Amino acid sequence: MKLNIALLAGDGIGPEVIDQAVKVSDAVASKFGHELTWKPALTGAAAIDAVGEPYPDETHEICKSSDAVLFGAIGHPKFDNDPSAKVRPEQGLLKMRKALGLFANVRPTFTFPSLLDKSPLKKERIEGTDLVFLRELTGGIYFGEKGRREEGETAYDNCVYTREEVQRLAKKGFELAMTRGKKLCCVDKANVLETSRLWRETVQAMEKDYPEVEVSYEFVDAVAMRLVQWPNSYDVLITENLFGDILTDEASVISGSMGLMPSASLGSDIGLFEPIHGSYPQAAGKNIANPMATVLSAAMMFENFGLHAEGKAIREVVNKALNEGMVTEDLADGGKSYGTSEVGDWLASNI
Amino acid sequence: MKLNIALLAGDGIGPEVIDQAVKVSDAVASKFGHELTWKPALTGAAAIDAVGEPYPDETHEICKSSDAVLFGAIGHPKFDNDPSAKVRPEQGLLKMRKALGLFANVRPTFTFPSLLDKSPLKKERIEGTDLVFLRELTGGIYFGEKGRREEGETAYDNCVYTREEVQRLAKKGFELAMTRGKKLCCVDKANVLETSRLWRETVQAMEKDYPEVEVSYEFVDAVAMRLVQWPNSYDVLITENLFGDILTDEASVISGSMGLMPSASLGSDIGLFEPIHGSYPQAAGKNIANPMATVLSAAMMFENFGLHAEGKAIREVVNKALNEGMVTEDLADGGKSYGTSEVGDWLASNI
Ligand SMILES: CC(C)[C@H](C(=O)O)[C@@H](O)C(=O)O
Ligand SMILES: CC(C)[C@H](C(=O)O)[C@@H](O)C(=O)O
Repeated sequence: MKLNIALLAGDGIGPEVIDQAVKVSDAVASKFGHELTWKPALTGAAAIDAVGEPYPDETHEICKSSDAVLFGAIGHPKFDNDPSAKVRPEQGLLKMRKALGLFANVRPTFTFPSLLDKSPLKKERIEGTDLVFLRELTGGIYFGEKGRREEGETAYDNCVYTREEVQRLAKKGFELAMTRGKKLCCVDKANVLETSRLWRETVQAMEKDYPEVEVSYEFVDAVAMRLVQWPNSYDVLITENLFGDILTDEASVISGSMGLMPSASLGSDIGLFEPIHGSYPQAAGKNIANPMATVLSAAMMFENFGLHAEGKAIREVVNKALNEGMVTEDLADGGKSYGTSEVGDWLASNI
Repeated sequence: MKLNIALLAGDGIGPEVIDQAVKVSDAVASKFGHELTWKPALTGAAAIDAVGEPYPDETHEICKSSDAVLFGAIGHPKFDNDPSAKVRPEQGLLKMRKALGLFANVRPTFTFPSLLDKSPLKKERIEGTDLVFLRELTGGIYFGEKGRREEGETAYDNCVYTREEVQRLAKKGFELAMTRGKKLCCVDKANVLETSRLWRETVQAMEKDYPEVEVSYEFVDAVAMRLVQWPNSYDVLITENLFGDILTDEASVISGSMGLMPSASLGSDIGLFEPIHGSYPQAAGKNIANPMATVLSAAMMFENFGLHAEGKAIREVVNKALNEGMVTEDLADGGKSYGTSEVGDWLASNI
């Protein structure tokens, strides 16, 4: 395959981890006979500094004309704690999601046997956890009308969902469940919110099309509990944008492997792949960041093109690195550790 | 003191656990020379069955004319998974919160040394955890305009906050922090929501009035993570209604003592005290429910009247019961356990 991939390195450790994912992807491409063309583009604080906005039109054009986007991380401390700043990196993220139609954020949480000890949870609680969240990413309270009235004394945010938005997300959820454990949990707050009642009735109406999938409906507060208690009882979970924001982050820490968790954001067209960790500015430029989450995001990218052997090759080499101690200091337990680029080189040469 | 206390036992295990809290409160009252008058009233599914609505006017009158409300639990399986049911127990809860002006839900999470092993978290993660959430309870998306348009195909929920609503909740938060570790965390999503920006700017403006309190601002998704990673790094957290719903439930399971966690809902006037566990219908009528959370809720009630020695007497007798194994089966680890009413009797006679 010939693939054009937009490369949005972003801020903080973004550029360093992206570099490693490029190396590994190139190694996979040459092994399997694909041709990858990388198209770097600006985003985040880096883009604000360069051209005054976090998701410039030029970046959007590059993304639109590519087959996928590989994304690092965005965010810079100078924009934190300043909710009134006119331009913020996060706005670029939201604009990009909307502009590229990335309505489904796929966030797996799984465990690596060699890393179970790193989980804040007891081993017997976390063992065997392998769940995936599908978070709706372009609707809900993130994108509803918001503002102030009464001279700024009253603020409002509107949460809106259409049946169609729920259907297209739920469809991906049912389909994903069919390829896995055939369990789907619809997470909502239908005892309070009208949007949640729309979610629930829409998913209920789709059940008949997937008779093999066992569907459950749970309130968001109950899921926040069960994720800590019995994370391994879940398979696929679908939920709206804000609940997904909170719960996917909660889920990401339970595995103890947050630095290794990849994600994908999919639409009807192009897909975006990124590590779930942030821009981690304190570590930027030090060659200490763990590149594995970004490398595994590249695996999701290949798999999304239907290139499963390629994805598997990446997953296997990451496992091998973990088993052989070819890791950055966050995973070294005080033992020998390697730099970001050394880990990347090792992964690429072991493909 | 002479105190009139409305007694809303509610559904499921509510009546059983409430009975024990009454016994223990009466024992405390007779020891310290107070006079308690209990005023039973209907609520929840029990009220729907009896008079067709979950929070009848008569119940409201009894609550209004009392000095406090002691509450069991509400909810019944026959109303679950039926988001379209016309009358639901939860509506009574929301109506009651609003009608009684209970704008601040106080949700402590603390640990009992003897129960640390029950936590899903590793001991070193949970040890020393002692945090309190103040959840705004009568505003936000729970009470904003909600409905459907486009013939039911589009649903919306509006989240609204006024500066005053934020101020009165934050004031309680600052004051509580002053009596404890002097740390206050404002939980919001100010990088996305306008209501969160109002929260943040309002709390920021109040900082100068409490120079001793160290205030931090964290995004809700980050808090969902840190609660699992380092729960003992928090002291007092304040947040809006929906975030509070999710995070307080998440926090409640980390201690491993969910069956023991009390709560209070306060306004400018009357206070309501209730265990955080639900109505647990499977256990109803079996004399197996753990009454300690309700008993500790009564302790919070006494403390809210300024009766600190009384509250302390209750906390101490609960600790004693835990240390001596006078516990219900959920805490017995397969060893000897006692019935709900036996535990209540023991607590009352050991006051
Ligand atoms: C940065 C922020 C706007 C974003 C979100 O809330 O969606 C982030 O938390 C995420 O989950 O990708
Ligand atoms: C039952 C429900 C309406 C309620 C809420 O969401 O407030 C409950 O979850 C709670 O936290 O008290």
